[in-house]
Amino acid sequence: QCRKCGYQPIPLWLPANPSAGSVATSQSQCGYQPIPAQEARAEETHRQGSAVAVLFTLLLTTTILTTWLFKHRRCRLLHETGLAMIYGLLVGVVLRFGVHVQPDVIDAPLSCVSNSSPPALLLNISGRLYEYTLRGEVSDTQGQDAPNAEILRKVTFDPEVFFNVLLPPIIFHAGYSLKRRHFFRNLGSILSYAFVGTVISSFVIGVVMYGCVALMSALGHLGGDFFFTDCLFFGAIISATDPVTVLAIFNELRVDVDLYALLFGESALNDAVAIVLSSSIVAYQPVSSSSHSFDGGAMLWSLGVFLGVLSGSFALGTAAGFITALVTKLTRLRDFPLLETSLFFLMSWSTFLFAEACSITGVVAVLFCGITQAHYTHSNLSAESKKRTRELFELLNFLAESFIFSYMGLTLFSFQHHVFNPVFISGAFLAMFLGRAANIYPLSFLLNLGRSNRISSNFQHVMMFAGLRGAMAFALSIRDTSTYARQMMFSTTLLIVFFTVWVFGGGTTPVLSYMNIRYTHIYTITQMHLNLVDEVVSRSYSQDSAWPIRLWYTFDHNYLKPLLTHSGPPLIKTLPACCSPLARCLTSSQDYQVKNTHLYPARRCLVSEILALEL
Amino acid sequence: QCRKCGYQPIPLWLPANPSAGSVATSQSQCGYQPIPAQEARAEETHRQGSAVAVLFTLLLTTTILTTWLFKHRRCRLLHETGLAMIYGLLVGVVLRFGVHVQPDVIDAPLSCVSNSSPPALLLNISGRLYEYTLRGEVSDTQGQDAPNAEILRKVTFDPEVFFNVLLPPIIFHAGYSLKRRHFFRNLGSILSYAFVGTVISSFVIGVVMYGCVALMSALGHLGGDFFFTDCLFFGAIISATDPVTVLAIFNELRVDVDLYALLFGESALNDAVAIVLSSSIVAYQPVSSSSHSFDGGAMLWSLGVFLGVLSGSFALGTAAGFITALVTKLTRLRDFPLLETSLFFLMSWSTFLFAEACSITGVVAVLFCGITQAHYTHSNLSAESKKRTRELFELLNFLAESFIFSYMGLTLFSFQHHVFNPVFISGAFLAMFLGRAANIYPLSFLLNLGRSNRISSNFQHVMMFAGLRGAMAFALSIRDTSTYARQMMFSTTLLIVFFTVWVFGGGTTPVLSYMNIRYTHIYTITQMHLNLVDEVVSRSYSQDSAWPIRLWYTFDHNYLKPLLTHSGPPLIKTLPACCSPLARCLTSSQDYQVKNTHLYPARRCLVSEILALEL
Repeated sequence: QCRKCGYQPIPLWLPANPSAGSVATSQSQCGYQPIPAQEARAEETHRQGSAVAVLFTLLLTTTILTTWLFKHRRCRLLHETGLAMIYGLLVGVVLRFGVHVQPDVIDAPLSCVSNSSPPALLLNISGRLYEYTLRGEVSDTQGQDAPNAEILRKVTFDPEVFFNVLLPPIIFHAGYSLKRRHFFRNLGSILSYAFVGTVISSFVIGVVMYGCVALMSALGHLGGDFFFTDCLFFGAIISATDPVTVLAIFNELRVDVDLYALLFGESALNDAVAIVLSSSIVAYQPVSSSSHSFDGGAMLWSLGVFLGVLSGSFALGTAAGFITALVTKLTRLRDFPLLETSLFFLMSWSTFLFAEACSITGVVAVLFCGITQAHYTHSNLSAESKKRTRELFELLNFLAESFIFSYMGLTLFSFQHHVFNPVFISGAFLAMFLGRAANIYPLSFLLNLGRSNRISSNFQHVMMFAGLRGAMAFALSIRDTSTYARQMMFSTTLLIVFFTVWVFGGGTTPVLSYMNIRYTHIYTITQMHLNLVDEVVSRSYSQDSAWPIRLWYTFDHNYLKPLLTHSGPPLIKTLPACCSPLARCLTSSQDYQVKNTHLYPARRCLVSEILALEL
Repeated sequence: QCRKCGYQPIPLWLPANPSAGSVATSQSQCGYQPIPAQEARAEETHRQGSAVAVLFTLLLTTTILTTWLFKHRRCRLLHETGLAMIYGLLVGVVLRFGVHVQPDVIDAPLSCVSNSSPPALLLNISGRLYEYTLRGEVSDTQGQDAPNAEILRKVTFDPEVFFNVLLPPIIFHAGYSLKRRHFFRNLGSILSYAFVGTVISSFVIGVVMYGCVALMSALGHLGGDFFFTDCLFFGAIISATDPVTVLAIFNELRVDVDLYALLFGESALNDAVAIVLSSSIVAYQPVSSSSHSFDGGAMLWSLGVFLGVLSGSFALGTAAGFITALVTKLTRLRDFPLLETSLFFLMSWSTFLFAEACSITGVVAVLFCGITQAHYTHSNLSAESKKRTRELFELLNFLAESFIFSYMGLTLFSFQHHVFNPVFISGAFLAMFLGRAANIYPLSFLLNLGRSNRISSNFQHVMMFAGLRGAMAFALSIRDTSTYARQMMFSTTLLIVFFTVWVFGGGTTPVLSYMNIRYTHIYTITQMHLNLVDEVVSRSYSQDSAWPIRLWYTFDHNYLKPLLTHSGPPLIKTLPACCSPLARCLTSSQDYQVKNTHLYPARRCLVSEILALEL
């Protein structure tokens, strides 16, 4: 019995370990510590946390310096994300095999919290109630699977950090930096690849993996449960191609703008599809958790979740963009770029938070918010803020991206529950290629039936080849590693990311040269070129596009742009007469000035907008 | 006995509360929950966290919009920090009295974790070990002191967030945006006010408060222990004047540059002194915790801690600045502004982390790092990065500052252990004025004996008046609110911050006009003015300054600047002959180019540097 709190703790508390350090030995048997020792422990935890953060900062600094060296020497063999992974790998190896630290009882290694462990508990000690939260399961010190489990645990982040801190700036940046003109021109094809293609790819991968798992089960290679829903889940997470590397490689090489728009638009949007698809599959699972057999109701429910979350996120992100556009249009905030940039940042970030608070997917909402902000708000900002916001999100994106990729490298050695199964891995690689092929080739064939500007077979091969997997696949697979199936998926995903980033990422330049696609395309537009561009643009919008795109463009140009920005024809002209009080109210004084004094002919106005889109 | 884990929990676990919601009732008696319920709870926590974050984002957005409106209408009555506090107050009132939510058992309100509660514990359940960490003490639902304790707890942050997330960018920005020329010219006076003055002020406040506490004790107004060390601690936290408001008000008004340098330099550096002084007093306390009487050994130890932490932080911050300067000098990183800005950001941030990992004060290290970065690294950066880094830290500073001030307003109503004691509050206001007077007037008198450019009595009155308390006083006082004494200090500090920001902050403009100090001072320097400036500058450095400043200037100009930047005379000329291999090695190719082709006469070189400092 404890002499301080009068509480009988023996069956519960771990006996004090005589080999532990000074902090640990100052603990009484019931865990009650005199004040300085307890404060010292909190301080020690903070100190170690800071040391880990220093480690990551230095890792990023080294990556930056090496990236500079590579750029300086014009070496394009390895992209900076590949570099970050290599450094992460090295640090992982050092931490795992190079450092030896005596584990102590207090900082005993914790394994991933599985769902079946006890949750928070309440203790009643001498009349006062204390709430405790579960930190994790302490693995057996004898049965440790890694020599430095304690250090490895310290460099391991909560997977939710990826979703709540690192992915939002990356995804927002992807949306905000879309080349809008080419994006909207290829909208139909991009949506087909991203939505239909990703779903096809997920199912193809799921089916191939189910065959692979069945084979493994027959051969006795399977060490745990692996259901068909797990296979589909794996298909969903591995179908998301990465916008980061595509953006970086193709931006530097200046390839054909349509190919770039197709690849980048697809990879930005299919992240959204992959997130929502995988969470719908998870939502499907618990309902049929007892049987894991096909269940029509659950399937429908899952489909409902998929459509609901996707449209909800779309609506929220777009709404946030609209509000920001209206605020920046109707106030003269542009006189103070600092306030303007802060407002822009806060509104974009609150989109993420608001979506999370509504239990829909923040990352997806942020993507649509980024596209809307780029399309409307951006043109309302002052020149100073345009630059500032771009630079800010570029920096955040760069830091988050470098961090994720170096963390990926680290994880290969620091994660302690890897399940590397050669059959599963080979199957996954095969499934990945088949899934990508089933996405690109049939869809391109169908799309070419309707496109005037056909997607050539060379383009299709490049799209097939440039399907790099990156941050999103990693974040989705690390989110839950509690079961055997999930651990095997995580390890395999990690290998696929490594392979695609190193091999495909490094090989893109030679492939593009071989395919004769690479060429430099720099616009130098002067007033003299306007007529020519005018012609091209009108043709491309009025004839080339399918009717939904034309309809959207007309609506955007006549109503949304005048409402949300200072460009386009005045609302008073486009809205029916009955709405003219509303139209007058929503037209800012600046609009009046611009539009009354300088009424463009409709066509010229269109061209100037298109040129603005180009930025 | 629990049917799932076979463990007998009755004396430990709280019996399930029949009035709780669906999440709570799905819990079995041992706290073991079926998977969906537990996942739902984690999701609910995340959802609520996001909702709180949305609340704060909207609070900041409203502040930004109102700030714009005030600036737009040229209303200087209330500074943006004052505005942020008002909005915070309003939200606090609404949360406390406007919203009514049924508390449930799981989310029962937690009080501050006192130091005597049991720490982490380990549970052995069916052969598996689980580690739990203490979340806090659950206060009695019947004895709640606020109607909405649960919501109020949710909007309450861990005090360490202020030290680890919000203060570093603010303090770094203060160091990075120092007007270096005037700062270095007034270095002696600034150091006197910041170091000697703050210590004097702390002691005066401590003594006055001790008298006040003795009076309260005699009158029976004291509800708990209050020792002399507590009084000194209060003196230390309340002596730190705030650079934020000073910077904002004086920057807009363009007052006399020397007055500005004195005020801003003092308020930036005395933050460092206040942090280190208060932590030294805390370090002094536990040694004599039994008696709280004077202890010579502990006093010396405390002094040692003060000097050690201060010099350690100075050394670390400066070293980080030097390393960044060398890296940016010796590489051609400037060709890639994104990489350069990222490196700058990471190096500055790692200073903070490294200091924390070494158990010295990160915030103080970051201040000196900021000054060093501004003095050396900044001149190595590309024009693009100079702009980017300034804008980035300006944005971070603005967001952190707005957040802290609106949080302060919120805290007045959301903090649940306020101790408002009229006698103590009156005493604190009196002590604050006395302490500030004992800092400014005697030191100014002594400094004027040595200064050729005397600090006029008008300046002294303004310095007395502009001693606003802000973020640092708040952060130091909220750090520990576990005892009666600390709670009373926190409540009083909050009132002092409100009073000084609203009354002094709003009154600065009239006071400056009344004192006839306000004037616009804009430099427009052309090549033609160089000779004149040359004359003034050389005089000010070679004759006006005291010898330690002149010595420092010569050393900086001859050795540090050539070593760390591309400016100043080449190292080969200034270093003795024996060091010439080293000097050659540390001179970059760019140095050679610049210095061989274009050797300025020493004086001209000096002037161009001074002009660079002006930026």
